[in-house]
Amino acid sequence: MSLLVKGKVKTVFELANPDTVLIQYEDRVTAGNGEKIAYPEGKGSICCQISKLIFKKIEQSGIKTHYIKTIQDNHMICKKVDIIPLEVIVRNIAAGSICRQTTIPEGKLFMTPLVEFHLKDDSKDDPLLTYDRMKLIGYDQAEFIKPALDINKILTKLFFNIGLDLVDFKIEFGLDKDRNLILADEISPDSCRLWKTGTRNSFDKDLFRKDEGDILEAYKHILNSLHNEEK
Amino acid sequence: MSLLVKGKVKTVFELANPDTVLIQYEDRVTAGNGEKIAYPEGKGSICCQISKLIFKKIEQSGIKTHYIKTIQDNHMICKKVDIIPLEVIVRNIAAGSICRQTTIPEGKLFMTPLVEFHLKDDSKDDPLLTYDRMKLIGYDQAEFIKPALDINKILTKLFFNIGLDLVDFKIEFGLDKDRNLILADEISPDSCRLWKTGTRNSFDKDLFRKDEGDILEAYKHILNSLHNEEK
Repeated sequence: MSLLVKGKVKTVFELANPDTVLIQYEDRVTAGNGEKIAYPEGKGSICCQISKLIFKKIEQSGIKTHYIKTIQDNHMICKKVDIIPLEVIVRNIAAGSICRQTTIPEGKLFMTPLVEFHLKDDSKDDPLLTYDRMKLIGYDQAEFIKPALDINKILTKLFFNIGLDLVDFKIEFGLDKDRNLILADEISPDSCRLWKTGTRNSFDKDLFRKDEGDILEAYKHILNSLHNEEK
Repeated sequence: MSLLVKGKVKTVFELANPDTVLIQYEDRVTAGNGEKIAYPEGKGSICCQISKLIFKKIEQSGIKTHYIKTIQDNHMICKKVDIIPLEVIVRNIAAGSICRQTTIPEGKLFMTPLVEFHLKDDSKDDPLLTYDRMKLIGYDQAEFIKPALDINKILTKLFFNIGLDLVDFKIEFGLDKDRNLILADEISPDSCRLWKTGTRNSFDKDLFRKDEGDILEAYKHILNSLHNEEK
């Protein structure tokens, strides 16, 4: 197997079938664009299994994703896509960068969910894009807003059912071999903000970012709850 | 006279007439949110005089500004305004932050001028605002776009006449005592990017930002050219 992409928490390998890739979820967590790093044992498997359940849920709702299947606990076979270098962020409640970069207070509930876009470029620190800037670099916001909001509806309900408020999340899209826009990357507590319903108690990577608790315990709780919910 | 606001390159004092203020242009130039600083002698007077000529030109076109008159070379009497904490940036050619934060190459000519907005907050590093973020903090982009583009037309012509391409510029607005939106702050080579027509030779603060030359000489050249143009 030859290495295709080495990401911060996932490694992508080529497979014999050129339309597919193997994604290995690593026992690694990073924050601050890789400045802070830790190696929690078993974290890769947990995120892989959570992502799997979420991708399956999204596929059931008729939205195409890159997910095909998992092999072993921390490997996912996916459709090979050309990743679109955009981070699409959906926000239901204000937290994180939007609070640091505006006067919007943490915890403010958005009347309509906000869809934001960042250029996926670590060397530039993933800068926020305005509508005009996106257009100038060749992307149409409208193409991403509907799928992002549809996914938000699915995830909000899914997490609500296990006692969590979906504050915000980041997704990435890619183009498959037929140039269809499909959901790619991962969806896990690494890429979502999740607060215990009605509180601001984090069950996500903020525990690591802010040194506020054990991510493994929180992530395991989510995986178990999603499993129970599925039954 | 009591101090009202101490800015990075200007100091604002109250006057006996409460509807007016005295703005003192300092012999100071800063870059990188104040990280880099120098004290070129006479710079305050030059920027004050350039601002004066530009404000007068803008007023002649029917756009209201805070400018009333200058006293001495480096003092301006202005209408007192409540400054709106937004940096409004108009871009005709790509340069500076938009190139660092996107894949748009320096020198790219925009088919239509771009109007961008940043929150004026040094502690947050003046973050870029999207349309949605602006709306959420209580501002309507539309209110600023027309005056910004009108000012762009006036300035583009003015600088073209003295052999300079107006690459981009930053303006600020305020509300006067009758709550009218009027142009405030300053317009000078500190707040504009100006390239010798058809080249990328800077006649603006980039000379200081990039250690590429003597700002005093460039600023004096602009002041003299604007004076000659006026005659």
